[in-house]
Amino acid sequence: MTKMQSDRSCLAIILAAGEGTRMKSRQPKVLHEVGGRSLLAHALAAVAEAGADAVVVVIGPDRPDVASEARALLPSATIAIQAERRGTAHAVLAAREALSGKHDDILIAFADTPLIQPQTFLDLRLALAEGASVAALGFEAQDPAGYGRFVIRDDELVAIVEHKDATEAQRAIRLCNAGLMALDGRQALSILEAIGSANAQGEFYLTDAVGVARERGLKAIALQAAESEVQGVNDRVQLAAAEAEFQRRKRLEAMKQGATLIAPETVFFSFDTRLGQDVLVEPNVVFGPGVSVADGAVIHAFSHLEGADVGPGATVGPYGRLRPGAKLGANAKVGNFVEIKASDIGEGAKVSHLTYIGDASVGADANIGAGTITCNYDGFFKYKTAIGAGAFVGSNSALVAPVTIGDRAIIGSGSVITKDVPADALAIGRGRQIEREGWAKTFRDKAMAKKSAAKKTPE
Amino acid sequence: MTKMQSDRSCLAIILAAGEGTRMKSRQPKVLHEVGGRSLLAHALAAVAEAGADAVVVVIGPDRPDVASEARALLPSATIAIQAERRGTAHAVLAAREALSGKHDDILIAFADTPLIQPQTFLDLRLALAEGASVAALGFEAQDPAGYGRFVIRDDELVAIVEHKDATEAQRAIRLCNAGLMALDGRQALSILEAIGSANAQGEFYLTDAVGVARERGLKAIALQAAESEVQGVNDRVQLAAAEAEFQRRKRLEAMKQGATLIAPETVFFSFDTRLGQDVLVEPNVVFGPGVSVADGAVIHAFSHLEGADVGPGATVGPYGRLRPGAKLGANAKVGNFVEIKASDIGEGAKVSHLTYIGDASVGADANIGAGTITCNYDGFFKYKTAIGAGAFVGSNSALVAPVTIGDRAIIGSGSVITKDVPADALAIGRGRQIEREGWAKTFRDKAMAKKSAAKKTPE
Amino acid sequence: MTKMQSDRSCLAIILAAGEGTRMKSRQPKVLHEVGGRSLLAHALAAVAEAGADAVVVVIGPDRPDVASEARALLPSATIAIQAERRGTAHAVLAAREALSGKHDDILIAFADTPLIQPQTFLDLRLALAEGASVAALGFEAQDPAGYGRFVIRDDELVAIVEHKDATEAQRAIRLCNAGLMALDGRQALSILEAIGSANAQGEFYLTDAVGVARERGLKAIALQAAESEVQGVNDRVQLAAAEAEFQRRKRLEAMKQGATLIAPETVFFSFDTRLGQDVLVEPNVVFGPGVSVADGAVIHAFSHLEGADVGPGATVGPYGRLRPGAKLGANAKVGNFVEIKASDIGEGAKVSHLTYIGDASVGADANIGAGTITCNYDGFFKYKTAIGAGAFVGSNSALVAPVTIGDRAIIGSGSVITKDVPADALAIGRGRQIEREGWAKTFRDKAMAKKSAAKKTPE
Repeated sequence: MTKMQSDRSCLAIILAAGEGTRMKSRQPKVLHEVGGRSLLAHALAAVAEAGADAVVVVIGPDRPDVASEARALLPSATIAIQAERRGTAHAVLAAREALSGKHDDILIAFADTPLIQPQTFLDLRLALAEGASVAALGFEAQDPAGYGRFVIRDDELVAIVEHKDATEAQRAIRLCNAGLMALDGRQALSILEAIGSANAQGEFYLTDAVGVARERGLKAIALQAAESEVQGVNDRVQLAAAEAEFQRRKRLEAMKQGATLIAPETVFFSFDTRLGQDVLVEPNVVFGPGVSVADGAVIHAFSHLEGADVGPGATVGPYGRLRPGAKLGANAKVGNFVEIKASDIGEGAKVSHLTYIGDASVGADANIGAGTITCNYDGFFKYKTAIGAGAFVGSNSALVAPVTIGDRAIIGSGSVITKDVPADALAIGRGRQIEREGWAKTFRDKAMAKKSAAKKTPE
Repeated sequence: MTKMQSDRSCLAIILAAGEGTRMKSRQPKVLHEVGGRSLLAHALAAVAEAGADAVVVVIGPDRPDVASEARALLPSATIAIQAERRGTAHAVLAAREALSGKHDDILIAFADTPLIQPQTFLDLRLALAEGASVAALGFEAQDPAGYGRFVIRDDELVAIVEHKDATEAQRAIRLCNAGLMALDGRQALSILEAIGSANAQGEFYLTDAVGVARERGLKAIALQAAESEVQGVNDRVQLAAAEAEFQRRKRLEAMKQGATLIAPETVFFSFDTRLGQDVLVEPNVVFGPGVSVADGAVIHAFSHLEGADVGPGATVGPYGRLRPGAKLGANAKVGNFVEIKASDIGEGAKVSHLTYIGDASVGADANIGAGTITCNYDGFFKYKTAIGAGAFVGSNSALVAPVTIGDRAIIGSGSVITKDVPADALAIGRGRQIEREGWAKTFRDKAMAKKSAAKKTPE
Repeated sequence: MTKMQSDRSCLAIILAAGEGTRMKSRQPKVLHEVGGRSLLAHALAAVAEAGADAVVVVIGPDRPDVASEARALLPSATIAIQAERRGTAHAVLAAREALSGKHDDILIAFADTPLIQPQTFLDLRLALAEGASVAALGFEAQDPAGYGRFVIRDDELVAIVEHKDATEAQRAIRLCNAGLMALDGRQALSILEAIGSANAQGEFYLTDAVGVARERGLKAIALQAAESEVQGVNDRVQLAAAEAEFQRRKRLEAMKQGATLIAPETVFFSFDTRLGQDVLVEPNVVFGPGVSVADGAVIHAFSHLEGADVGPGATVGPYGRLRPGAKLGANAKVGNFVEIKASDIGEGAKVSHLTYIGDASVGADANIGAGTITCNYDGFFKYKTAIGAGAFVGSNSALVAPVTIGDRAIIGSGSVITKDVPADALAIGRGRQIEREGWAKTFRDKAMAKKSAAKKTPE
């Protein structure tokens, strides 16, 4: 079943109410990021790709920041508040209004498992389509201690037994509860409401949905995912582990699609990074969100890109920094210690060294000398710089925006350019050189005498 | 037992006389560094944290460099010289004068095991406090071949048998000798002097202290540490392994204390790096010694910090370099390709791009344009630059120190500022722009003709 | 047997005709790089080190790029074209003309196994010298599925059985076929021509050389290499794996020879990188091809070197970039955000910050201030800058080449220097500073009013 093939409607309930105290952070856990977007965004993206038509995000009380992020990410999302913490089933029931039976499939997802694959949700939904009322996701834990165990009989899920309640034989089971679940939309509310709290903690456990369903003669089944896919994030060590797994996937994907990563373990992707074929990425490159690199481009070592488009055959770095709005034409070159922000660099243009280009357009085949600075800000407003095609800006020049350098114009090295320069003109703005013969010798002699005197005098 | 609770006095003898020929270095082995300080410094710090009141460092002859480092690190340290290499017990006896019996506990440590934990020394001392005369440290070796084996009987350490002298049964023992030991101060000298050299090498082995003690009816016991903790450094591969383990610990510690390390394996700490809560560290950051980062600060990728204080909410990088004496106020910003040395950057001030700020103070909310350089050195002396609060320094300016820019003053882009600028004033120091229409076209035509001619003429 | 000791002549046939479609690249597979040189170059280097007197490179049709690279790397190489793909024996027979019997040893190598060690080839040749007619290379596969298995009897190689043709017992064999082979030069052609294509694929398999040889009463033997050494490169994931193994070897070698790599996993070498003794390499350093670092030099973090010589005791970085032709004298210093290209930096000279030095010579003990730019290019030609010994170039200066700064001359900060400066002279070329009192306040007041007005007006 793929997103397209299904005609079943789907509601996803994303549980995002955990306090996340082990994160030791002022920021709510689900707003921490993996691969350049929040854990919550990962969850929303996964259920969307799995075909969810409606989404409820269940958050804790006093979490306007989580609500805002959820709405910003998915304006159609419903926010439900779990006022008290009384267990996972209780959390799901915070979305009670949405559980009216109008959706065929109910997906219950967690906002802190950012590595879940949409296909896994689709597999759970397929199980519902094939007749199960409850489909629960398990995984083979390397170390099962502490996890609920899946008791399977005749291919059906008979129970999910908490570790502490498990018999010796049940503890030998390695298939553990991942927490994610799909419920048949017609029975979901009824099943959830039947779950009781007669346990040591006095909480309502979602896992009891299995028992409730079976008592009613309904079918519960288990699916299995890799442990890495369902690993939750509860502290910063686990956050780093999730990031590592995310990066491992993205690196593999990039290589399989035809990019060369010389040292994949040193390249960091964002969730939406796109690399074309025969892109070469040297060691130590960071891709922030919103980067697209066209075929045949080369990203040299120590480069940092964010919100940038790199054209075919273009080269960046080493030490190239592309900030949001940087757009490099075909075969353009951005060299070392160069920062480009909100600027178009034309086809074949070169910005090779120690330069800041901001709020500018650089024409095709223009050459921007080392140390050039676009002075785009006066402390209050930002202004544009336009550099024409084929222009040559001499090294160490300052271009004071707003200013236009005409096509094929030349700017003398070390100039401060404050007025527009016509096409084909030369512009120079610098002081005249003067010399004083012997001055350096005199200065040196005096300075050394002073230095020597300073050493002799006790301070 | 913690440092505070103990009222037993403690002498630590640090063996630092090894030649370290496998390092293939002109530098003595114990001066090589892990986590930004020498192996010797790690040993001194560990015994200090374990409550050592007095320290003797035993060094080889002709090692004034090691003696100097020891004295620099701990002025109260006694330096003892082991003139000949006649075994570990012989090395310890180089500290004979200090073994007068006035200390309760004698700790024998190695200068080339930088990962030893103070708690381990405290545990050894506790064993003495509880009645042992000899407490030796062991570890379970992954590959025990070559190591001395601990023979334990009825919870007592009966002997440490060299690998080559061990029986088949003894070789099956996995608990190996780590070398570190604690001796009861009243008996230490007497035990050490009783150790003979009747062995193949004719050397005096510290391990024989166990046998001597037991012959006297004294108790010897074994404690166990992790192999990674007692791993010695004998060549540069082991030095790198020790560094890796050191970094692993520091990264874990930083995350557990509430910092986010997106890619912990790419962040390098020094022994004294301090990160506050909710500090975010992007991939590829190097912390040299002496760095403190306050709560909520962000260290972007490819940054390098040393001897620097980063205030709360401040941001550094990407490609930010803070050198010793850099101090960033709250919410200050140091951007890409920026170097700050011995300078205060005020609260909310911004130094965003391609700038060198040295020996300067930058007032609150000042804005330093791209490409600004403080010219703080005349080849002989260094001078100060003071930039007032709210000042705006236009891009690509050179500030020739000593110079003061008043509060809220503005410096025109591309200026060279050699004289003080009053508050609220504008200062400009640059050449006037002139243009020559068509000059670029003529130049280009001539140059292309010349280039074309050059190609035709065989060289 | 070493290269020197052998008086047997040797022909190497390098099979480079694979299409490499799994690379998903426009570039032929064998031109992809590991350690800064092509896979083909690795193969050519390995057979050369193993004493090959003659080399044939067998390439596919329509691969002029591979032929060019082979000729560029080894002008004496013969290029043979395998017009159709009819199996490995067929590929070898593309080199039929060279198999005239005049070479004692025939080595058959693959252009896509870049990690093969010359010693392995020498071992295969030794087997021939000791009487084998066929010597085939095997390896113990972690996962043998899919590989041909070596059937060994009485120390002789009896057959190489394809996985799909193997019996249960044969599939239990873990010694698998690596593909590389050595053949006795007197029999090679005859054996190869006797190989038939009576198999499912209708191809001529080199592995059948074993059967042919044994039928003739000739001896075939097997040698064994590590799996990592014979791992082929078929896609970009395997390319990255080969790079990782290459780097692992180089890092180990550098450390064993007396360099300190603080974090070896973050240092990237090229095939020809040379590091002296007591060289210290901080984390995150990339060595492109052609770099030599002399004893006692320090390469700080985030540095990138290519085609550069670093003199004894010199320091580079952090963020130092040395491009081809950079040559640093003893104790010279290249600091952060500095790019050096095709320039000599004299003994003890300092180029500490934010500088571009191209096509220049910098004399001994000269000091180049922060933000200095050599303006070496006018858009058409490149020109030289000569800076004398002991010269002091003030910060943020532009040196417009061709230009000579005399010994001990001083350049004022922020100057544009277009004319030669005599020794011991001072040269300044900058605008005069002017101030306008109160201007900044007026400007600010107006700007804030404008900003405030802009906010009020709906856009």
